[in-house]
Amino acid sequence: MRIALLVYDGMTALDAVGPYDSLSRLPEADIVTASPDGGPATCGGGIVIQAAAALADVDAADVLIVPGGMASALRAMLGDGAVMDWLRRIDQTSRYTCSVCTGALLLASAGVLRNRTAATHWRAHDALTALGATPATDRVHVDGKYLTSGGVTAGIDMGLALCGLLVGRELGEAIELSMHYAPQPPFGTGDPATALTPARRKLIEERLRN
Amino acid sequence: MRIALLVYDGMTALDAVGPYDSLSRLPEADIVTASPDGGPATCGGGIVIQAAAALADVDAADVLIVPGGMASALRAMLGDGAVMDWLRRIDQTSRYTCSVCTGALLLASAGVLRNRTAATHWRAHDALTALGATPATDRVHVDGKYLTSGGVTAGIDMGLALCGLLVGRELGEAIELSMHYAPQPPFGTGDPATALTPARRKLIEERLRN
Repeated sequence: MRIALLVYDGMTALDAVGPYDSLSRLPEADIVTASPDGGPATCGGGIVIQAAAALADVDAADVLIVPGGMASALRAMLGDGAVMDWLRRIDQTSRYTCSVCTGALLLASAGVLRNRTAATHWRAHDALTALGATPATDRVHVDGKYLTSGGVTAGIDMGLALCGLLVGRELGEAIELSMHYAPQPPFGTGDPATALTPARRKLIEERLRN
Repeated sequence: MRIALLVYDGMTALDAVGPYDSLSRLPEADIVTASPDGGPATCGGGIVIQAAAALADVDAADVLIVPGGMASALRAMLGDGAVMDWLRRIDQTSRYTCSVCTGALLLASAGVLRNRTAATHWRAHDALTALGATPATDRVHVDGKYLTSGGVTAGIDMGLALCGLLVGRELGEAIELSMHYAPQPPFGTGDPATALTPARRKLIEERLRN
């Protein structure tokens, strides 16, 4: 089972490594990290993931995973015809096409989410609508073969759900246990439906890396 | 604020990238990824994180983060005197010394957890005891300046708790929201206290990458 994981400059590292962790525990998985030119991806905040391949070297995959990233990085990717062509090409024969966070904007821009419903980061709902898809508010959203997930950490939930689809519930349960995924968020403010206040939005937009 | 993040071959990528995500959103953070020789760290499953520095280039840090990894990788690190020396040196002047998953075994082996209580992966409790520390069953454990966390994903909770300690609750809450950290584990089997059965342990030991 071949899994293609897109990596690129300005990507959010956790968007990629979140689903990577569960999928890489599968005995059957062959995961290839692919960047536009095969070079290293300098992620948001500066951490560097070295790709194993260039997009041109990956012709097909059973599973495609598209992480999100910073606004400037997304603009660069949306404007790169070779990247958009690659997403369409891999999607054509994939068994599952998946995104984390604003990775849904890349899939939508490539045209593969047209008339579909998709999850994305809560700040990107308008941008997703403008690209022809309907934002979903669930954390992991399944529409046909498209598994999309909300902001950053939602990719962990998506990866585990995907493991369940790929190899069955029994192994999925064991992977969740091996990852000790029994989260206790320290602040309880992770859900925009209950925690998004004007003050917090201002803090996020003005003081934090986005 | 300088944060030193140890990376090494055989490390679990999510152990490092989990806390990295929240900490890297802090406007004040200067995070340096450091590997034993400054070269790339090929993590469990094959994903590669390129270090920004060698251990010898990092003399001090406000925060030290030590991720866990595969058993063979831990054995190599435990037997590397230069790594053990570096952990002791950075710990000597750190404000916080932190570990994720089996990273606690590295700290314990370096001697900095002597007579302390620490969290680690549920499979590593006996190994931690053998190294002179007392295993804690909480997901994130605070003992003085030592913040240790349970298996893999517990590092995300630890990173957020650390953000709160470093910059205050208000910004910590905003970071948790920007990460959309309102988890919905698909299987509900992440907690060893309730989900660890002989059958699941066998699956994990025999069929999954560890």
